[in-house]
Amino acid sequence: MSVSSQSVGIVTPQAFHFAEALPLKSGASISDYTLMVETYGELNADKSNAVLICHALNASHHVAGVYADQPKNVGWWDNMVGPGKPVDTNRFFVIGINNLGSCFGSTGPMHTNPAGTQPYGADFPVVTVEDWVQAQARVADRFGIQQFAAVMGGSLGGMQALAWSILFPDRLRHCIVIASTPKLSAQNIAFNDVARQAILTDPDFHGGHFYAHKVVPRRGLRVARMIGHITYLSDDDMAEKFGRDLKTGSLQFGYGVDFEIESYLRYQGDKFSDYFDANTYLLITKALDYFDPARETGGDLAAALAVTKAKFLIASFTTDWRFSPERSREIVRALVSSRRPVTYAEIDAPHGHDAFLLDDSRYLNLVAAYYDRIDAELKGESA
Amino acid sequence: MSVSSQSVGIVTPQAFHFAEALPLKSGASISDYTLMVETYGELNADKSNAVLICHALNASHHVAGVYADQPKNVGWWDNMVGPGKPVDTNRFFVIGINNLGSCFGSTGPMHTNPAGTQPYGADFPVVTVEDWVQAQARVADRFGIQQFAAVMGGSLGGMQALAWSILFPDRLRHCIVIASTPKLSAQNIAFNDVARQAILTDPDFHGGHFYAHKVVPRRGLRVARMIGHITYLSDDDMAEKFGRDLKTGSLQFGYGVDFEIESYLRYQGDKFSDYFDANTYLLITKALDYFDPARETGGDLAAALAVTKAKFLIASFTTDWRFSPERSREIVRALVSSRRPVTYAEIDAPHGHDAFLLDDSRYLNLVAAYYDRIDAELKGESA
Repeated sequence: MSVSSQSVGIVTPQAFHFAEALPLKSGASISDYTLMVETYGELNADKSNAVLICHALNASHHVAGVYADQPKNVGWWDNMVGPGKPVDTNRFFVIGINNLGSCFGSTGPMHTNPAGTQPYGADFPVVTVEDWVQAQARVADRFGIQQFAAVMGGSLGGMQALAWSILFPDRLRHCIVIASTPKLSAQNIAFNDVARQAILTDPDFHGGHFYAHKVVPRRGLRVARMIGHITYLSDDDMAEKFGRDLKTGSLQFGYGVDFEIESYLRYQGDKFSDYFDANTYLLITKALDYFDPARETGGDLAAALAVTKAKFLIASFTTDWRFSPERSREIVRALVSSRRPVTYAEIDAPHGHDAFLLDDSRYLNLVAAYYDRIDAELKGESA
Repeated sequence: MSVSSQSVGIVTPQAFHFAEALPLKSGASISDYTLMVETYGELNADKSNAVLICHALNASHHVAGVYADQPKNVGWWDNMVGPGKPVDTNRFFVIGINNLGSCFGSTGPMHTNPAGTQPYGADFPVVTVEDWVQAQARVADRFGIQQFAAVMGGSLGGMQALAWSILFPDRLRHCIVIASTPKLSAQNIAFNDVARQAILTDPDFHGGHFYAHKVVPRRGLRVARMIGHITYLSDDDMAEKFGRDLKTGSLQFGYGVDFEIESYLRYQGDKFSDYFDANTYLLITKALDYFDPARETGGDLAAALAVTKAKFLIASFTTDWRFSPERSREIVRALVSSRRPVTYAEIDAPHGHDAFLLDDSRYLNLVAAYYDRIDAELKGESA
């Protein structure tokens, strides 16, 4: 199998407005909101070929292709979604949705709070993975999609796919969960909380209402991203890429840059603080922390997954220490224990958690083969 | 073997002043400095029973016992050093030295820069592990100690012990290196740099001259400590101690404390920012980053260690992911390859990097047995 280098080409996002209030798990609700949506490929006549792609922390509805006026702004999963690619847009109608509370056009903390005239800021209600799934279901309704061929995501996106399988068992045939976990560990939460503390204690955060002060808590966001980035890469990959290489060839005996890894991380932090919203960072890390579908079944994940009707593909990467293969195997064991159909792949890949976004032929071929099976299944039923 | 619960009791630190300039690896020098020193036990007539304990990041010369006016201020390795303890002060004369640049009484960034009238601040020269060892050797000279029975340390302290074995091969009989590494990995450096960035970008840091502003970069120190603390504990230990336990029993849907682990880490960060100096934090993490005894032998650690004459005890802990057992095995392999005498112990312990400070009978008994051997060796020679 060869993976195509074709792209979906130029794409155009659409804004979907929802007037009806969305009740949230916290008890709050969002009374009026917009979600940014992109689609690739064509929805077939019986609306059976739709695939929903759920995004992780800093991604968006822009899954594939480029914008006419931004030819370098390539979708975050362009290697996965497109004509002839693993999620083949010649066969599937693919939808990307920017989640509520994000900072890429969907209603979020930087938008005006209808309760007043100022941006929501830190008053934007805390949203959960389940809230996002409810909002995504309304988008599916707009398209008249009763059942997705697949709901798919990596990391936090995988949690959304898992939540879909529990909340709407009849609305997805396949659930594809990559580099994810049934819930964060104490260590995962700890890293998130340090990142949040860096933002919350930045004097430019102003309790989340920094927009009015025309500043950005850049220092906090920068440190948050640096911490996050360390957890996305494997120790070995970092050693391989940077090792102890010195930026200038000699030690500086000061607090500038000595090592290449410092230069790289600071650059990543700077770049992130230029475009990402601090309140969104807080919101999304809370959604990660709170996700725990087994909470309502007394910690019994198998019981939580017993209601599902989808077929599952669970995939993990050997060097992912953020959400290690063991975390994926917990999902697999729970599915097996509930006699749900599941395929599991543990991919030997050096790139840590980030592997789910990268070009790795074994990984891409696995997903492509799985989608071939979905396609054959759909064709078999319509034949 | 039973480990004693006796303590060395009330101890009194001494200030050792050195007028002679200490040349540093950076090319700078410290012209006039004081080191805080504590000793436990009695130096024997031939001065052969001295043990030097080297401290890690946030510890000091206060290794064991308590102060008369601070009965709760127990030395950081009181479980290791004392009468009948693994490093038995009934047999050994134990010395603790607060390193240059630290913030517990030895000359550091908060002291007046002789070049002016203000504290050194960030102008305190960057010191290395090797610089510390040179300073420690001058303390040994003051005591008239030509050769230590052992030089011992954990983590950064282990690096100092290793540096002793290379810089002063004739001045130690035994070199005891616990939970350490021959050099930091890219990931280790990355964590240190994020911590430093949190401090350096805190508006209260004032380029290191915050003393004059009567403020402390508390936010940065707090985040730095939280990051550090995550790396000191094992994932499993954190899961065991905190798991996903909620502080109040329910989710808060806000940015206060939800999980016990958050409460714990924030408390650790707050406590640390109350007593630790920000410039010292920068200095000490740089000393960690720079340590690489094989740099001068083209990366060949065995060649760097070939000059040593000590016998080595290397010990690591299975769940230490900061300096994993594999990092200790690198030292062991290099020693074996250079035909140096080495004992290696990999201790199955759940507490991650912090294990080297904790009560673990297998660990304490190992060290006790090793010191019995040192004692027998000394008695054999004097018999």
